[in-house]
Amino acid sequence: MTKFGELWTRSYRELIVEAGLKALEDAELPGESIKCLYLASMGPGMWVSQEHVGPMIAEQTGLINVPVVRVESGCASGAVALHQAFIDIASGKHDVVVVGGVEKMTDVGAKEASSIVDTMLDHEWETVFGGTLTGLYAMMARRHMHDYGTTREQMAQVAVKNHHNGSLNPLAQFGREIGADKILSAPMLADPLRMLDRAPISDGSAALVLSSKGDVEISACEMATSSLALHSREDITTMISVVRSSQRAYEAAGIRPRDIGIAELHDYCTIGEIIESEDLGFFEKGEGGKMVEEGETSLSGILPINTSGGLKSRGHPIGATGVAQAVEIYDQLMGRANGRQIESLDHGLCCSVGGSGGSAVVSTFKRR
Amino acid sequence: MTKFGELWTRSYRELIVEAGLKALEDAELPGESIKCLYLASMGPGMWVSQEHVGPMIAEQTGLINVPVVRVESGCASGAVALHQAFIDIASGKHDVVVVGGVEKMTDVGAKEASSIVDTMLDHEWETVFGGTLTGLYAMMARRHMHDYGTTREQMAQVAVKNHHNGSLNPLAQFGREIGADKILSAPMLADPLRMLDRAPISDGSAALVLSSKGDVEISACEMATSSLALHSREDITTMISVVRSSQRAYEAAGIRPRDIGIAELHDYCTIGEIIESEDLGFFEKGEGGKMVEEGETSLSGILPINTSGGLKSRGHPIGATGVAQAVEIYDQLMGRANGRQIESLDHGLCCSVGGSGGSAVVSTFKRR
Repeated sequence: MTKFGELWTRSYRELIVEAGLKALEDAELPGESIKCLYLASMGPGMWVSQEHVGPMIAEQTGLINVPVVRVESGCASGAVALHQAFIDIASGKHDVVVVGGVEKMTDVGAKEASSIVDTMLDHEWETVFGGTLTGLYAMMARRHMHDYGTTREQMAQVAVKNHHNGSLNPLAQFGREIGADKILSAPMLADPLRMLDRAPISDGSAALVLSSKGDVEISACEMATSSLALHSREDITTMISVVRSSQRAYEAAGIRPRDIGIAELHDYCTIGEIIESEDLGFFEKGEGGKMVEEGETSLSGILPINTSGGLKSRGHPIGATGVAQAVEIYDQLMGRANGRQIESLDHGLCCSVGGSGGSAVVSTFKRR
Repeated sequence: MTKFGELWTRSYRELIVEAGLKALEDAELPGESIKCLYLASMGPGMWVSQEHVGPMIAEQTGLINVPVVRVESGCASGAVALHQAFIDIASGKHDVVVVGGVEKMTDVGAKEASSIVDTMLDHEWETVFGGTLTGLYAMMARRHMHDYGTTREQMAQVAVKNHHNGSLNPLAQFGREIGADKILSAPMLADPLRMLDRAPISDGSAALVLSSKGDVEISACEMATSSLALHSREDITTMISVVRSSQRAYEAAGIRPRDIGIAELHDYCTIGEIIESEDLGFFEKGEGGKMVEEGETSLSGILPINTSGGLKSRGHPIGATGVAQAVEIYDQLMGRANGRQIESLDHGLCCSVGGSGGSAVVSTFKRR
């Protein structure tokens, strides 16, 4: 991973090259061993006027010739790249591939950035009527509060926890603690969600080397979709794409939710982490907020969630996020997460969500 | 395939749904048999303000739940979707998948359309200095004329042939013949290339069902990259990505160029078809222009190229093109290409090129 943040002096191509080279160095593999690249980037044509990024990355990393497949699935893009790389290795087509994710979001102004993020919504049924991604999450939050008694304070605790974890991650965008009082009094974005309930606009890149051997196994990687528009869903307090992809992943890996010792979830907004922690089967429906409040998802809890700092504190360069989640789980399973290391881990999980839940990817990892 | 053209009354989602349902109907398969969708679209956020198109397509086609992987590789996007679907089937992960491609390019003005197309170039080294995709092809054309004596008239004959073929394809954007005189006197775009040397701006969609069984086998599907920027290449009259991907494909399929009985090439500009016909090993380097002139690539020639009309006449809705090429080869191998049917076919080939050759995918097909 590169440092995540507002990296004014770094370009799109510099970021992905840095992450790619770090991954190769860490894997102790020469460039020639790489047979294919999977690259996630949400909307480089809109962010940096550059599409067709595959060959650019191949050239910049000295891998001209190698196939580069760019994928996009909103905020879940990075996880979809991992999904494709996983299938590739499973097919036997290639034995060593690289998965990279990158976004450079700070070259446009804040207003334009929001417009670009909102292309992930259903344009004809949500965006043109003024819908925003934060606005959709706000509706999910309100309904979750109504149905299950989840409180504003519980949501704030997600951000408090993730900022604490991020303060232990030198690559995180925000390397400092933020108290609940600050979060609860931050500017309102879409009631009940405030500025500090949401992931920032970020630049950054992450990369992984996948091979048929290695110390950590991806025991499953599954994707599912739901309706793109929130209004088409039967229940907006549940992300059915997360439910389905996780069920498939547990089955493929032969494990149950309780076997998971650590998880990186998609806290684009604080309520997202709460909903996913329920939809993944970690907690009963409606209990997610309480579990955060009771510290069960903190570094010393029964199931540490977002030890990296999550999208909230590590940052959210969209295409990089799904890959960065896997980097954290890898580091944790390898025992090299330094100040935030969780002990005695067997299984880890990543959950990435596109938009308001239209797509989701769940991956499980185990130490070999 | 849908009709390709300026489809003012049709939306992005309508087009992909029409193509998808036609493919399912033709395959005589119920929607439930589809386990994954691979979707190609070059820049829907820029064309129609909609990214995260995967879940939208899943929802619109009644396949909510199914994973949808969107890929992009410039003009080669459709072929990359085919590549991923091919790997998926090969991996054994899924037994029936759909490949779809779509673009809706006429909702923006002509000037904006050109800007969007030009995001496929190297932004930092080509576009910001005024480079355009047609301009790059013009340089390739000039050098090919200089090195091999290829003539302006030979390039025009590519368009004449493809418009003739397109006049026999009811789904083609331009269903009429165009004479060499018109092409040679069309408005200049980038010397020596004129308006009628280049593919149009198009709307349209195409889809294919892939399964481990079927009457036509994809005997190989290979991808390669080259430098994104034209100036980094040793020789601009050769697309090294096409050379490499075709060599890999021939090897994987166990065939030679001479075994191919029909091919769909990427005639974004007329010179492109000539260069590819050489780089694919069909003709000696420098002979491509002469072969067109002598009619060897016409419907009655030794190797009919672009029987569908090609990008020039069938149209070029970017994400759909690579899939539409495969649709034509399928129809030809199945003997249902009606007025443009080629007899006694064993092997067919598709070649898709991203941008000026930064990426390329070559697929070979055979009748089982």
